[in-house]
Amino acid sequence: MSTKQKAKKKPASFGDVARSALSVTSDVSLAEIDPSSTPGYTGDKASGTKDLAVVAGELSELQERFFAASRAGAQQKVLLILQGMDTSGKGGIVRHVVGAVDPQGVKHYAFKAPTPAEKRHDFLWRVNKQLPGAGQIGVFDRSHYEDVLIHKVRGLSPAEEIERRYGAINDFEAELVQQGTTIIKVMLHISKDEQGARLAERLEREDKFWKFNPGDIDERELWEAYMGAYESAIERTHTDAAPWFVIPADRKWYARLAVATLLQQALKGINPQWPAADFDVKEQKRRLAAS
Amino acid sequence: MSTKQKAKKKPASFGDVARSALSVTSDVSLAEIDPSSTPGYTGDKASGTKDLAVVAGELSELQERFFAASRAGAQQKVLLILQGMDTSGKGGIVRHVVGAVDPQGVKHYAFKAPTPAEKRHDFLWRVNKQLPGAGQIGVFDRSHYEDVLIHKVRGLSPAEEIERRYGAINDFEAELVQQGTTIIKVMLHISKDEQGARLAERLEREDKFWKFNPGDIDERELWEAYMGAYESAIERTHTDAAPWFVIPADRKWYARLAVATLLQQALKGINPQWPAADFDVKEQKRRLAAS
Repeated sequence: MSTKQKAKKKPASFGDVARSALSVTSDVSLAEIDPSSTPGYTGDKASGTKDLAVVAGELSELQERFFAASRAGAQQKVLLILQGMDTSGKGGIVRHVVGAVDPQGVKHYAFKAPTPAEKRHDFLWRVNKQLPGAGQIGVFDRSHYEDVLIHKVRGLSPAEEIERRYGAINDFEAELVQQGTTIIKVMLHISKDEQGARLAERLEREDKFWKFNPGDIDERELWEAYMGAYESAIERTHTDAAPWFVIPADRKWYARLAVATLLQQALKGINPQWPAADFDVKEQKRRLAAS
Repeated sequence: MSTKQKAKKKPASFGDVARSALSVTSDVSLAEIDPSSTPGYTGDKASGTKDLAVVAGELSELQERFFAASRAGAQQKVLLILQGMDTSGKGGIVRHVVGAVDPQGVKHYAFKAPTPAEKRHDFLWRVNKQLPGAGQIGVFDRSHYEDVLIHKVRGLSPAEEIERRYGAINDFEAELVQQGTTIIKVMLHISKDEQGARLAERLEREDKFWKFNPGDIDERELWEAYMGAYESAIERTHTDAAPWFVIPADRKWYARLAVATLLQQALKGINPQWPAADFDVKEQKRRLAAS
Protein backbone atom coordinates (compact mmCIF):
# COMPACT_ATOMS: atom_id res chain seq x y z
CA MET A 1 0.00 0.00 0.00
CA SER A 2 1.49 3.38 -0.98
CA THR A 3 1.73 6.28 1.46
CA LYS A 4 -0.87 8.10 -0.59
CA GLN A 5 -3.34 5.25 -0.24
CA LYS A 6 -2.64 5.03 3.46
CA ALA A 7 -3.47 8.68 3.88
CA LYS A 8 -6.90 8.12 2.30
CA LYS A 9 -7.73 5.19 4.54
CA LYS A 10 -11.13 5.25 6.27
CA PRO A 11 -11.43 6.14 9.95
CA ALA A 12 -11.19 3.20 12.36
CA SER A 13 -14.24 0.96 12.11
CA PHE A 14 -16.19 -0.24 15.16
CA GLY A 15 -14.50 -3.62 14.76
CA ASP A 16 -11.11 -1.96 15.31
CA VAL A 17 -12.13 -0.10 18.45
CA ALA A 18 -14.85 -2.27 20.07
CA ARG A 19 -12.53 -4.24 22.32
CA SER A 20 -10.82 -1.19 23.75
CA ALA A 21 -14.04 0.84 23.94
CA LEU A 22 -15.73 -1.91 25.96
CA SER A 23 -12.88 -3.11 28.13
CA VAL A 24 -12.84 -2.17 31.78
CA THR A 25 -10.32 -1.94 34.57
CA SER A 26 -10.67 -4.15 37.60
CA ASP A 27 -11.75 -1.18 39.73
CA VAL A 28 -14.64 -0.39 37.38
CA SER A 29 -17.52 1.64 38.77
CA LEU A 30 -20.71 0.58 37.01
CA ALA A 31 -22.45 3.78 38.08
CA GLU A 32 -20.02 5.66 35.86
CA ILE A 33 -20.90 3.70 32.72
CA ASP A 34 -24.05 5.04 31.09
CA PRO A 35 -26.25 2.07 30.12
CA SER A 36 -27.70 4.04 27.21
CA SER A 37 -24.33 4.98 25.74
CA THR A 38 -22.81 3.37 22.64
CA PRO A 39 -19.05 3.31 23.27
CA GLY A 40 -16.93 3.33 20.13
CA TYR A 41 -19.93 3.57 17.84
CA THR A 42 -21.13 6.84 16.35
CA GLY A 43 -24.09 5.59 14.29
CA ASP A 44 -27.75 5.39 15.28
CA LYS A 45 -30.17 2.47 15.52
CA ALA A 46 -30.78 2.30 11.77
CA SER A 47 -27.10 2.13 10.90
CA GLY A 48 -26.42 -0.18 13.85
CA THR A 49 -29.01 -2.64 12.59
CA LYS A 50 -27.47 -2.57 9.12
CA ASP A 51 -23.98 -2.97 10.54
CA LEU A 52 -25.14 -5.93 12.63
CA ALA A 53 -26.24 -7.71 9.46
CA VAL A 54 -22.80 -7.12 7.94
CA VAL A 55 -20.92 -8.27 11.04
CA ALA A 56 -23.21 -11.30 11.37
CA GLY A 57 -22.38 -12.29 7.80
CA GLU A 58 -18.65 -12.00 8.46
CA LEU A 59 -19.05 -13.89 11.70
CA SER A 60 -20.88 -16.69 9.91
CA GLU A 61 -18.08 -17.00 7.33
CA LEU A 62 -15.34 -16.95 9.94
CA GLN A 63 -17.20 -19.54 11.97
CA GLU A 64 -17.33 -21.93 9.03
CA ARG A 65 -13.57 -21.63 8.60
CA PHE A 66 -13.10 -22.04 12.35
CA PHE A 67 -15.19 -25.20 12.33
CA ALA A 68 -13.41 -26.54 9.23
CA ALA A 69 -9.97 -25.99 10.80
CA SER A 70 -10.97 -28.08 13.79
CA ARG A 71 -11.73 -31.03 11.50
CA ALA A 72 -8.04 -30.95 10.57
CA GLY A 73 -6.93 -30.89 14.19
CA ALA A 74 -7.00 -27.22 15.23
CA GLN A 75 -7.77 -27.13 18.94
CA GLN A 76 -9.14 -23.63 19.42
CA LYS A 77 -12.49 -22.99 21.06
CA VAL A 78 -14.43 -19.81 21.78
CA LEU A 79 -16.52 -19.33 24.92
CA LEU A 80 -18.94 -16.45 25.23
CA ILE A 81 -20.14 -15.90 28.79
CA LEU A 82 -23.28 -13.78 29.07
CA GLN A 83 -24.13 -12.20 32.39
CA GLY A 84 -26.58 -9.46 33.27
CA MET A 85 -29.64 -8.65 35.33
CA ASP A 86 -33.04 -10.06 34.30
CA THR A 87 -34.23 -8.52 31.01
CA SER A 88 -30.75 -7.29 30.12
CA GLY A 89 -31.05 -9.03 26.76
CA LYS A 90 -29.11 -12.29 27.10
CA GLY A 91 -31.82 -14.20 25.24
CA GLY A 92 -31.89 -11.63 22.46
CA ILE A 93 -28.12 -11.99 22.01
CA VAL A 94 -28.56 -15.74 21.67
CA ARG A 95 -31.36 -15.39 19.13
CA HIS A 96 -29.96 -12.54 17.05
CA VAL A 97 -26.18 -12.89 17.32
CA VAL A 98 -25.49 -16.54 18.05
CA GLY A 99 -28.41 -17.40 15.75
CA ALA A 100 -26.42 -15.94 12.85
CA VAL A 101 -23.97 -18.83 12.85
CA ASP A 102 -24.43 -22.46 11.85
CA PRO A 103 -26.13 -24.37 14.71
CA GLN A 104 -23.67 -27.18 14.03
CA GLY A 105 -20.83 -25.04 15.39
CA VAL A 106 -22.58 -23.74 18.51
CA LYS A 107 -22.84 -25.26 21.97
CA HIS A 108 -25.38 -23.23 23.91
CA TYR A 109 -26.27 -23.78 27.53
CA ALA A 110 -28.58 -21.82 29.83
CA PHE A 111 -27.61 -22.28 33.47
CA LYS A 112 -30.53 -22.43 35.89
CA ALA A 113 -30.50 -22.80 39.66
CA PRO A 114 -28.44 -25.95 40.35
CA THR A 115 -30.31 -29.21 40.80
CA PRO A 116 -29.90 -31.27 43.99
CA ALA A 117 -27.52 -33.60 42.09
CA GLU A 118 -25.44 -30.63 40.91
CA LYS A 119 -25.34 -29.22 44.41
CA ARG A 120 -23.58 -32.35 45.61
CA HIS A 121 -20.57 -31.31 43.50
CA ASP A 122 -18.26 -28.32 43.39
CA PHE A 123 -19.83 -25.34 41.60
CA LEU A 124 -17.56 -25.80 38.56
CA TRP A 125 -18.52 -29.45 38.06
CA ARG A 126 -21.59 -28.75 35.94
CA VAL A 127 -19.79 -25.99 34.05
CA ASN A 128 -17.06 -28.35 32.90
CA LYS A 129 -19.65 -30.53 31.18
CA GLN A 130 -20.90 -27.68 29.02
CA LEU A 131 -17.59 -26.46 27.61
CA PRO A 132 -17.27 -26.09 23.84
CA GLY A 133 -15.15 -28.59 21.93
CA ALA A 134 -12.57 -27.71 19.27
CA GLY A 135 -14.09 -25.58 16.51
CA GLN A 136 -17.17 -24.76 18.56
CA ILE A 137 -18.48 -21.49 19.89
CA GLY A 138 -19.75 -22.14 23.39
CA VAL A 139 -22.39 -19.80 24.76
CA PHE A 140 -23.21 -19.63 28.45
CA ASP A 141 -26.47 -17.87 29.24
CA ARG A 142 -25.57 -17.20 32.87
CA SER A 143 -22.64 -19.18 34.17
CA HIS A 144 -20.38 -19.97 37.13
CA TYR A 145 -20.54 -16.27 37.90
CA GLU A 146 -23.98 -16.79 39.42
CA ASP A 147 -22.15 -18.75 42.10
CA VAL A 148 -20.40 -15.58 43.24
CA LEU A 149 -23.14 -13.07 42.34
CA ILE A 150 -26.41 -14.34 43.80
CA HIS A 151 -24.43 -16.21 46.45
CA LYS A 152 -22.86 -12.96 47.63
CA VAL A 153 -26.05 -10.89 47.41
CA ARG A 154 -28.22 -13.46 49.18
CA GLY A 155 -25.56 -14.87 51.45
CA LEU A 156 -26.05 -18.37 50.03
CA SER A 157 -22.39 -19.12 50.74
CA PRO A 158 -20.10 -17.77 53.47
CA ALA A 159 -17.72 -14.96 52.52
CA GLU A 160 -14.66 -17.26 52.63
CA GLU A 161 -16.26 -19.65 50.18
CA ILE A 162 -16.99 -16.80 47.80
CA GLU A 163 -13.39 -15.67 48.13
CA ARG A 164 -12.25 -19.20 47.33
CA ARG A 165 -14.50 -19.25 44.28
CA TYR A 166 -12.99 -16.10 42.75
CA GLY A 167 -9.62 -17.84 42.84
CA ALA A 168 -11.06 -21.11 41.55
CA ILE A 169 -12.69 -19.27 38.65
CA ASN A 170 -9.42 -17.59 37.74
CA ASP A 171 -7.55 -20.89 37.81
CA PHE A 172 -10.29 -22.61 35.82
CA GLU A 173 -10.43 -19.91 33.16
CA ALA A 174 -6.63 -19.65 32.90
CA GLU A 175 -6.54 -23.39 32.30
CA LEU A 176 -9.17 -23.12 29.56
CA VAL A 177 -7.21 -20.35 27.88
CA GLN A 178 -4.07 -22.50 28.01
CA GLN A 179 -5.99 -25.29 26.33
CA GLY A 180 -6.87 -22.97 23.43
CA THR A 181 -10.11 -21.32 24.51
CA THR A 182 -10.74 -17.66 23.77
CA ILE A 183 -13.04 -16.47 26.56
CA ILE A 184 -15.30 -13.44 26.09
CA LYS A 185 -16.91 -12.40 29.36
CA VAL A 186 -19.76 -9.97 28.88
CA MET A 187 -21.80 -8.09 31.43
CA LEU A 188 -24.90 -6.62 29.79
CA HIS A 189 -25.33 -3.38 31.68
CA ILE A 190 -28.88 -2.01 31.82
CA SER A 191 -30.30 0.74 33.97
CA LYS A 192 -32.82 0.03 36.68
CA ASP A 193 -35.33 2.23 34.83
CA GLU A 194 -34.93 0.27 31.63
CA GLN A 195 -35.41 -2.98 33.53
CA GLY A 196 -38.58 -1.54 35.01
CA ALA A 197 -39.91 -0.75 31.54
CA ARG A 198 -39.03 -4.23 30.24
CA LEU A 199 -40.63 -5.99 33.20
CA ALA A 200 -43.73 -3.82 32.78
CA GLU A 201 -43.95 -4.98 29.17
CA ARG A 202 -43.83 -8.59 30.32
CA LEU A 203 -46.79 -7.85 32.54
CA GLU A 204 -48.76 -6.25 29.71
CA ARG A 205 -48.42 -8.79 26.93
CA GLU A 206 -49.92 -12.26 26.93
CA ASP A 207 -46.99 -13.51 24.79
CA LYS A 208 -44.53 -12.24 27.42
CA PHE A 209 -46.09 -13.57 30.64
CA TRP A 210 -43.98 -16.73 30.40
CA LYS A 211 -40.81 -14.68 30.69
CA PHE A 212 -41.94 -13.08 33.93
CA ASN A 213 -41.31 -14.51 37.35
CA PRO A 214 -42.36 -12.79 40.58
CA GLY A 215 -38.85 -13.58 41.82
CA ASP A 216 -37.52 -11.10 39.24
CA ILE A 217 -38.91 -8.29 41.39
CA ASP A 218 -37.29 -9.73 44.51
CA GLU A 219 -33.95 -9.58 42.70
CA ARG A 220 -34.71 -6.09 41.39
CA GLU A 221 -35.18 -4.88 44.94
CA LEU A 222 -31.56 -5.87 45.54
CA TRP A 223 -30.31 -3.85 42.55
CA GLU A 224 -27.59 -1.96 44.38
CA ALA A 225 -26.31 -5.11 46.05
CA TYR A 226 -26.12 -6.80 42.64
CA MET A 227 -24.18 -3.90 41.16
CA GLY A 228 -21.76 -4.23 44.07
CA ALA A 229 -21.48 -7.99 43.54
CA TYR A 230 -20.75 -7.46 39.84
CA GLU A 231 -18.07 -4.92 40.71
CA SER A 232 -16.49 -7.36 43.17
CA ALA A 233 -16.62 -10.19 40.65
CA ILE A 234 -15.06 -8.04 37.97
CA GLU A 235 -12.45 -6.79 40.40
CA ARG A 236 -11.46 -10.33 41.35
CA THR A 237 -11.80 -12.09 37.98
CA HIS A 238 -10.82 -9.48 35.40
CA THR A 239 -7.60 -11.12 34.20
CA ASP A 240 -5.32 -10.68 31.20
CA ALA A 241 -6.23 -14.19 30.11
CA ALA A 242 -9.99 -13.68 30.45
CA PRO A 243 -10.95 -10.02 30.65
CA TRP A 244 -14.43 -8.63 31.23
CA PHE A 245 -16.35 -6.39 28.86
CA VAL A 246 -19.15 -4.21 30.21
CA ILE A 247 -21.65 -3.56 27.43
CA PRO A 248 -24.21 -0.79 27.81
CA ALA A 249 -27.45 -2.59 27.03
CA ASP A 250 -30.33 -0.15 27.30
CA ARG A 251 -30.21 -0.03 23.50
CA LYS A 252 -30.69 -3.61 22.37
CA TRP A 253 -29.36 -2.89 18.88
CA TYR A 254 -26.08 -1.62 20.31
CA ALA A 255 -25.58 -4.55 22.70
CA ARG A 256 -26.18 -7.02 19.87
CA LEU A 257 -23.80 -5.21 17.54
CA ALA A 258 -21.18 -5.05 20.30
CA VAL A 259 -21.32 -8.76 21.17
CA ALA A 260 -21.36 -9.77 17.49
CA THR A 261 -18.30 -7.60 16.95
CA LEU A 262 -16.44 -9.04 19.94
CA LEU A 263 -17.11 -12.55 18.63
CA GLN A 264 -16.07 -11.61 15.12
CA GLN A 265 -12.86 -10.02 16.38
CA ALA A 266 -12.09 -13.11 18.47
CA LEU A 267 -12.41 -15.35 15.42
CA LYS A 268 -10.42 -12.91 13.32
CA GLY A 269 -7.69 -13.07 15.95
CA ILE A 270 -7.66 -16.86 15.78
CA ASN A 271 -7.45 -16.48 12.00
CA PRO A 272 -8.58 -20.03 11.17
CA GLN A 273 -7.36 -21.47 7.87
CA TRP A 274 -9.10 -23.81 5.46
CA PRO A 275 -7.43 -27.18 5.97
CA ALA A 276 -5.17 -28.36 3.19
CA ALA A 277 -6.25 -31.55 1.44
CA ASP A 278 -4.92 -34.58 3.32
CA PHE A 279 -5.39 -36.68 0.19
CA ASP A 280 -4.04 -36.57 -3.35
CA VAL A 281 -6.53 -34.33 -5.18
CA LYS A 282 -5.61 -35.63 -8.65
CA GLU A 283 -5.95 -39.23 -7.57
CA GLN A 284 -9.35 -38.58 -6.01
CA LYS A 285 -10.55 -36.77 -9.13
CA ARG A 286 -9.56 -39.81 -11.15
CA ARG A 287 -11.38 -42.13 -8.75
CA LEU A 288 -14.47 -39.92 -8.82
CA ALA A 289 -14.52 -39.83 -12.63
CA ALA A 290 -14.35 -43.64 -12.68
CA SER A 291 -17.11 -44.10 -10.12
CA MET B 1 -66.45 -17.46 7.43
CA SER B 2 -69.35 -17.07 4.97
CA THR B 3 -69.89 -19.40 2.04
CA LYS B 4 -69.03 -16.58 -0.32
CA GLN B 5 -65.67 -16.03 1.36
CA LYS B 6 -64.99 -19.75 1.31
CA ALA B 7 -65.57 -19.88 -2.43
CA LYS B 8 -62.92 -17.21 -2.98
CA LYS B 9 -60.33 -19.04 -0.92
CA LYS B 10 -56.85 -19.44 -2.47
CA PRO B 11 -55.67 -22.76 -3.90
CA ALA B 12 -53.98 -25.09 -1.41
CA SER B 13 -50.59 -23.75 -0.33
CA PHE B 14 -47.45 -25.88 -0.20
CA GLY B 15 -47.88 -26.08 3.57
CA ASP B 16 -51.23 -27.79 3.09
CA VAL B 17 -49.95 -30.39 0.66
CA ALA B 18 -46.29 -30.94 1.61
CA ARG B 19 -46.89 -33.84 3.97
CA SER B 20 -48.96 -35.82 1.53
CA ALA B 21 -46.80 -34.89 -1.47
CA LEU B 22 -43.68 -36.15 0.33
CA SER B 23 -45.04 -39.16 2.16
CA VAL B 24 -44.18 -42.61 0.90
CA THR B 25 -45.56 -46.11 1.20
CA SER B 26 -43.48 -48.82 2.82
CA ASP B 27 -42.87 -50.46 -0.56
CA VAL B 28 -41.39 -47.25 -1.99
CA SER B 29 -39.10 -47.58 -5.01
CA LEU B 30 -36.53 -44.80 -4.86
CA ALA B 31 -35.76 -45.24 -8.56
CA GLU B 32 -39.28 -44.04 -9.26
CA ILE B 33 -38.87 -40.75 -7.38
CA ASP B 34 -37.13 -38.15 -9.52
CA PRO B 35 -34.47 -36.41 -7.33
CA SER B 36 -34.84 -33.21 -9.35
CA SER B 37 -38.63 -33.03 -8.95
CA THR B 38 -40.43 -30.64 -6.60
CA PRO B 39 -43.51 -32.55 -5.37
CA GLY B 40 -46.39 -30.35 -4.33
CA TYR B 41 -44.60 -27.15 -5.31
CA THR B 42 -45.18 -25.39 -8.59
CA GLY B 43 -42.83 -22.41 -8.18
CA ASP B 44 -39.23 -22.05 -9.30
CA LYS B 45 -36.00 -21.39 -7.39
CA ALA B 46 -36.66 -17.66 -7.05
CA SER B 47 -40.12 -18.14 -5.57
CA GLY B 48 -38.92 -21.10 -3.49
CA THR B 49 -36.21 -18.99 -1.91
CA LYS B 50 -38.74 -16.28 -1.10
CA ASP B 51 -41.18 -18.81 0.29
CA LEU B 52 -38.45 -20.32 2.45
CA ALA B 53 -37.91 -16.95 4.09
CA VAL B 54 -41.63 -16.72 4.85
CA VAL B 55 -41.85 -20.28 6.22
CA ALA B 56 -38.68 -19.75 8.26
CA GLY B 57 -40.25 -16.67 9.84
CA GLU B 58 -43.40 -18.59 10.74
CA LEU B 59 -41.31 -21.48 12.03
CA SER B 60 -39.34 -19.12 14.23
CA GLU B 61 -42.53 -17.67 15.73
CA LEU B 62 -44.08 -21.08 16.32
CA GLN B 63 -40.86 -22.29 17.90
CA GLU B 64 -40.90 -19.46 20.42
CA ARG B 65 -44.44 -20.37 21.44
CA PHE B 66 -43.46 -24.04 21.55
CA PHE B 67 -40.54 -23.25 23.84
CA ALA B 68 -42.67 -20.95 26.01
CA ALA B 69 -45.35 -23.62 26.47
CA SER B 70 -42.75 -26.06 27.77
CA ARG B 71 -41.82 -23.60 30.53
CA ALA B 72 -45.37 -24.02 31.76
CA GLY B 73 -45.18 -27.80 31.69
CA ALA B 74 -46.04 -28.80 28.12
CA GLN B 75 -44.18 -32.02 27.38
CA GLN B 76 -44.03 -32.04 23.58
CA LYS B 77 -40.77 -32.41 21.69
CA VAL B 78 -39.94 -32.45 17.99
CA LEU B 79 -37.25 -34.66 16.51
CA LEU B 80 -36.03 -34.14 12.96
CA ILE B 81 -33.99 -37.07 11.67
CA LEU B 82 -31.90 -36.27 8.60
CA GLN B 83 -30.59 -39.10 6.48
CA GLY B 84 -29.13 -39.14 2.99
CA MET B 85 -26.03 -40.00 1.01
CA ASP B 86 -22.91 -37.81 1.32
CA THR B 87 -23.48 -34.32 -0.18
CA SER B 88 -27.26 -34.74 -0.07
CA GLY B 89 -27.51 -31.46 1.84
CA LYS B 90 -27.95 -32.41 5.50
CA GLY B 91 -25.52 -29.70 6.60
CA GLY B 92 -27.28 -27.10 4.46
CA ILE B 93 -30.61 -27.98 6.10
CA VAL B 94 -29.03 -27.47 9.51
CA ARG B 95 -27.54 -24.12 8.52
CA HIS B 96 -30.44 -22.69 6.56
CA VAL B 97 -33.55 -24.27 8.10
CA VAL B 98 -32.64 -25.14 11.68
CA GLY B 99 -30.54 -21.95 11.75
CA ALA B 100 -33.75 -19.95 11.36
CA VAL B 101 -34.90 -20.77 14.90
CA ASP B 102 -33.57 -19.62 18.25
CA PRO B 103 -30.46 -21.67 19.15
CA GLN B 104 -31.86 -21.86 22.67
CA GLY B 105 -34.63 -24.16 21.46
CA VAL B 106 -32.52 -26.49 19.33
CA LYS B 107 -30.62 -29.62 20.28
CA HIS B 108 -28.46 -30.57 17.32
CA TYR B 109 -26.28 -33.65 17.14
CA ALA B 110 -24.18 -35.04 14.29
CA PHE B 111 -23.67 -38.77 14.66
CA LYS B 112 -20.26 -40.00 13.54
CA ALA B 113 -18.90 -43.55 13.50
CA PRO B 114 -19.39 -44.86 17.04
CA THR B 115 -16.45 -44.59 19.43
CA PRO B 116 -15.02 -47.69 21.14
CA ALA B 117 -16.93 -46.72 24.31
CA GLU B 118 -20.18 -46.37 22.35
CA LYS B 119 -19.60 -49.73 20.68
CA ARG B 120 -19.64 -51.41 24.07
CA HIS B 121 -23.35 -50.52 24.33
CA ASP B 122 -26.45 -51.25 22.30
CA PHE B 123 -26.72 -49.05 19.20
CA LEU B 124 -29.55 -47.00 20.72
CA TRP B 125 -27.60 -46.14 23.87
CA ARG B 126 -25.86 -43.10 22.43
CA VAL B 127 -29.03 -42.00 20.64
CA ASN B 128 -30.97 -41.84 23.90
CA LYS B 129 -28.51 -39.30 25.26
CA GLN B 130 -29.13 -36.87 22.42
CA LEU B 131 -32.93 -36.73 22.55
CA PRO B 132 -34.57 -33.30 22.72
CA GLY B 133 -36.20 -32.20 25.96
CA ALA B 134 -39.65 -30.64 26.28
CA GLY B 135 -40.00 -27.55 24.09
CA GLN B 136 -36.90 -28.40 22.08
CA ILE B 137 -36.45 -29.24 18.43
CA GLY B 138 -33.95 -32.07 18.23
CA VAL B 139 -32.01 -32.46 15.01
CA PHE B 140 -30.12 -35.64 14.18
CA ASP B 141 -27.61 -35.26 11.35
CA ARG B 142 -27.43 -38.98 10.63
CA SER B 143 -28.87 -41.22 13.32
CA HIS B 144 -29.60 -44.75 14.49
CA TYR B 145 -30.49 -45.47 10.87
CA GLU B 146 -26.79 -45.69 10.04
CA ASP B 147 -26.83 -48.82 12.19
CA VAL B 148 -29.10 -50.53 9.69
CA LEU B 149 -27.87 -48.78 6.51
CA ILE B 150 -24.07 -48.97 6.47
CA HIS B 151 -24.28 -52.13 8.59
CA LYS B 152 -26.38 -53.82 5.93
CA VAL B 153 -24.39 -52.53 2.97
CA ARG B 154 -21.01 -53.40 4.45
CA GLY B 155 -22.09 -56.44 6.40
CA LEU B 156 -20.92 -54.89 9.67
CA SER B 157 -23.62 -56.82 11.52
CA PRO B 158 -25.20 -60.19 10.71
CA ALA B 159 -28.57 -60.18 8.99
CA GLU B 160 -30.43 -61.32 12.15
CA GLU B 161 -29.00 -58.41 14.11
CA ILE B 162 -30.14 -55.96 11.46
CA GLU B 163 -33.59 -57.56 11.55
CA ARG B 164 -33.60 -57.14 15.32
CA ARG B 165 -32.63 -53.50 14.96
CA TYR B 166 -35.57 -52.65 12.68
CA GLY B 167 -37.87 -53.90 15.43
CA ALA B 168 -35.89 -52.13 18.15
CA ILE B 169 -36.08 -48.87 16.20
CA ASN B 170 -39.84 -49.19 15.81
CA ASP B 171 -40.29 -49.87 19.53
CA PHE B 172 -37.95 -47.01 20.43
CA GLU B 173 -39.65 -44.50 18.15
CA ALA B 174 -43.15 -45.60 19.20
CA GLU B 175 -42.12 -45.02 22.81
CA LEU B 176 -40.82 -41.54 21.98
CA VAL B 177 -44.08 -40.69 20.22
CA GLN B 178 -46.04 -41.89 23.26
CA GLN B 179 -43.92 -39.59 25.42
CA GLY B 180 -44.94 -36.61 23.29
CA THR B 181 -42.31 -36.49 20.54
CA THR B 182 -43.28 -35.64 16.98
CA ILE B 183 -40.75 -37.46 14.80
CA ILE B 184 -39.99 -36.27 11.26
CA LYS B 185 -37.86 -38.78 9.39
CA VAL B 186 -36.37 -37.38 6.22
CA MET B 187 -34.39 -39.07 3.50
CA LEU B 188 -32.74 -36.47 1.29
CA HIS B 189 -32.86 -38.13 -2.10
CA ILE B 190 -30.19 -37.05 -4.59
CA SER B 191 -29.18 -38.61 -7.88
CA LYS B 192 -25.82 -40.26 -8.33
CA ASP B 193 -25.00 -37.68 -11.01
CA GLU B 194 -25.74 -34.79 -8.70
CA GLN B 195 -23.55 -36.36 -6.02
CA GLY B 196 -20.78 -36.66 -8.60
CA ALA B 197 -21.04 -32.96 -9.38
CA ARG B 198 -21.04 -32.01 -5.68
CA LEU B 199 -18.04 -34.19 -4.88
CA ALA B 200 -16.21 -32.74 -7.90
CA GLU B 201 -16.82 -29.27 -6.51
CA ARG B 202 -15.28 -30.33 -3.20
CA LEU B 203 -12.19 -31.40 -5.11
CA GLU B 204 -11.96 -28.08 -6.96
CA ARG B 205 -12.31 -25.55 -4.17
CA GLU B 206 -9.78 -24.98 -1.41
CA ASP B 207 -12.61 -24.00 0.95
CA LYS B 208 -14.35 -27.32 0.29
CA PHE B 209 -11.46 -29.79 0.68
CA TRP B 210 -12.28 -30.25 4.36
CA LYS B 211 -15.68 -31.64 3.46
CA PHE B 212 -14.17 -34.32 1.25
CA ASN B 213 -13.09 -37.71 2.43
CA PRO B 214 -11.71 -40.41 0.11
CA GLY B 215 -14.09 -42.80 1.87
CA ASP B 216 -16.97 -40.87 0.27
CA ILE B 217 -16.03 -42.45 -3.06
CA ASP B 218 -15.91 -45.90 -1.52
CA GLU B 219 -19.48 -45.38 -0.36
CA ARG B 220 -20.47 -43.94 -3.74
CA GLU B 221 -19.30 -47.11 -5.42
CA LEU B 222 -21.93 -48.93 -3.36
CA TRP B 223 -24.72 -46.58 -4.50
CA GLU B 224 -27.18 -49.28 -5.59
CA ALA B 225 -26.63 -51.25 -2.39
CA TYR B 226 -27.33 -48.10 -0.37
CA MET B 227 -30.54 -47.42 -2.27
CA GLY B 228 -31.57 -50.99 -1.50
CA ALA B 229 -30.70 -50.54 2.17
CA TYR B 230 -32.75 -47.32 2.33
CA GLU B 231 -35.69 -49.11 0.76
CA SER B 232 -35.41 -51.95 3.29
CA ALA B 233 -35.13 -49.50 6.17
CA ILE B 234 -38.17 -47.57 4.97
CA GLU B 235 -40.07 -50.78 4.40
CA ARG B 236 -39.38 -51.95 7.94
CA THR B 237 -39.59 -48.65 9.85
CA HIS B 238 -42.21 -46.61 8.02
CA THR B 239 -44.86 -46.59 10.74
CA ASP B 240 -47.99 -44.59 11.43
CA ALA B 241 -46.33 -43.21 14.53
CA ALA B 242 -43.11 -42.21 12.76
CA PRO B 243 -43.50 -42.11 8.98
CA TRP B 244 -40.72 -41.46 6.47
CA PHE B 245 -40.61 -38.59 4.01
CA VAL B 246 -38.47 -38.90 0.89
CA ILE B 247 -37.44 -35.45 -0.25
CA PRO B 248 -36.03 -34.94 -3.73
CA ALA B 249 -32.82 -33.05 -3.03
CA ASP B 250 -31.05 -32.33 -6.30
CA ARG B 251 -32.46 -28.82 -5.94
CA LYS B 252 -31.18 -27.55 -2.63
CA TRP B 253 -33.75 -24.76 -2.48
CA TYR B 254 -36.58 -27.26 -2.74
CA ALA B 255 -35.20 -29.62 -0.10
CA ARG B 256 -34.76 -26.73 2.33
CA LEU B 257 -38.26 -25.40 1.68
CA ALA B 258 -39.69 -28.89 2.08
CA VAL B 259 -37.98 -29.61 5.42
CA ALA B 260 -38.81 -26.15 6.76
CA THR B 261 -42.43 -26.73 5.81
CA LEU B 262 -42.57 -30.17 7.45
CA LEU B 263 -41.18 -28.66 10.65
CA GLN B 264 -43.58 -25.74 10.50
CA GLN B 265 -46.53 -28.08 9.94
CA ALA B 266 -45.44 -30.25 12.86
CA LEU B 267 -45.39 -27.25 15.18
CA LYS B 268 -48.69 -26.02 13.79
CA GLY B 269 -50.13 -29.44 14.56
CA ILE B 270 -48.89 -29.23 18.14
CA ASN B 271 -50.48 -25.78 18.27
CA PRO B 272 -48.53 -24.54 21.31
CA GLN B 273 -50.18 -21.87 23.43
CA TRP B 274 -48.63 -18.96 25.29
CA PRO B 275 -48.76 -19.98 28.95
CA ALA B 276 -51.25 -18.14 31.11
CA ALA B 277 -49.78 -16.07 33.92
CA ASP B 278 -49.25 -18.25 37.00
CA PHE B 279 -49.16 -15.11 39.14
CA ASP B 280 -51.56 -12.27 39.88
CA VAL B 281 -50.77 -9.72 37.16
CA LYS B 282 -52.25 -6.78 39.06
CA GLU B 283 -50.34 -7.62 42.21
CA GLN B 284 -47.07 -7.91 40.30
CA LYS B 285 -47.70 -4.59 38.56
CA ARG B 286 -48.17 -3.01 41.94
CA ARG B 287 -44.98 -4.59 43.27
CA LEU B 288 -43.07 -3.47 40.19
CA ALA B 289 -44.30 0.10 40.50
CA ALA B 290 -43.15 0.15 44.12
CA SER B 291 -39.71 -1.28 43.35
